[in-house]
Amino acid sequence: MTQPEIAPAREADIPLILSLITELAEFEKLKDQVVATEASLKESLFGPRPAAQALIARSDGTCAGFALYFHNFSTFLGRRGLYLEDLYVRPAFRGRSIGKALLAHLARLAVERGCGRFEWAVLDWNTAARDFYESLGAQANPTWVNYRLTGAALERLAGGSLAR
Amino acid sequence: MTQPEIAPAREADIPLILSLITELAEFEKLKDQVVATEASLKESLFGPRPAAQALIARSDGTCAGFALYFHNFSTFLGRRGLYLEDLYVRPAFRGRSIGKALLAHLARLAVERGCGRFEWAVLDWNTAARDFYESLGAQANPTWVNYRLTGAALERLAGGSLAR
Repeated sequence: MTQPEIAPAREADIPLILSLITELAEFEKLKDQVVATEASLKESLFGPRPAAQALIARSDGTCAGFALYFHNFSTFLGRRGLYLEDLYVRPAFRGRSIGKALLAHLARLAVERGCGRFEWAVLDWNTAARDFYESLGAQANPTWVNYRLTGAALERLAGGSLAR
Repeated sequence: MTQPEIAPAREADIPLILSLITELAEFEKLKDQVVATEASLKESLFGPRPAAQALIARSDGTCAGFALYFHNFSTFLGRRGLYLEDLYVRPAFRGRSIGKALLAHLARLAVERGCGRFEWAVLDWNTAARDFYESLGAQANPTWVNYRLTGAALERLAGGSLAR
């Protein structure tokens, strides 16, 4: 069995990336939240101001998984970090260290780009993933709680008491 | 009492922003984590590829607080979001809805820029902040746990089993 080949996604990979996002959402029991389209991914990954970047892992020429990331920013460090939004290995390819190879590739990108941190979030019930991440030296930060404003609540605040 | 004036930070505000970051870190009991410098903030906020943006709130000409944000990305939505990294109102200016004015300004930016989500994280013990965010319609996502790889562990993974 050869090592997986990891390379930046190309524009031709967009239909594949949308498939992988949907497979991941199914695994996370969140498929109803997927509204991304090929057009929105094309704009976001390959448009004039890319919002994110992706890596594709292939094993013997077949897509085994992907990672999608962007740069966040730490005010305390005063520099950008690397944020992993999605990491997914297809079931048939698990147990071959492909997830670890993707994470190692991203860690090297983070170091090369001068990022002080490499961060991501995981569903609390996904203990297999959490154990794996901790085996790599990653630390959970359970004292921070994520908040989100979206939909009607976002529109309401946007239209409200904005100081002009 | 006049409404606060909220405006994008200018390069001349960098020493002020570093002071505000340090004040916030003191409040969060995390001051030892601040290693940002004026030079790193200048590069990150006003360099050729800005990693983040900042808003300054002034009340009668005096700095009352700030917000620092960047764009993240949701694969499920297929588009970018707005991520609030830091929000801080100086103690002397609290109780005047300055935090709400900053959040409303950011919510409007999020809507104008086509962001599907406006997100941030809060320390779990900061119940005053959590109650305030929830009063605005924000929802906590406690099922996601944040992970971080930094320092020696990041270097180790970067230097390790990278598939080439």
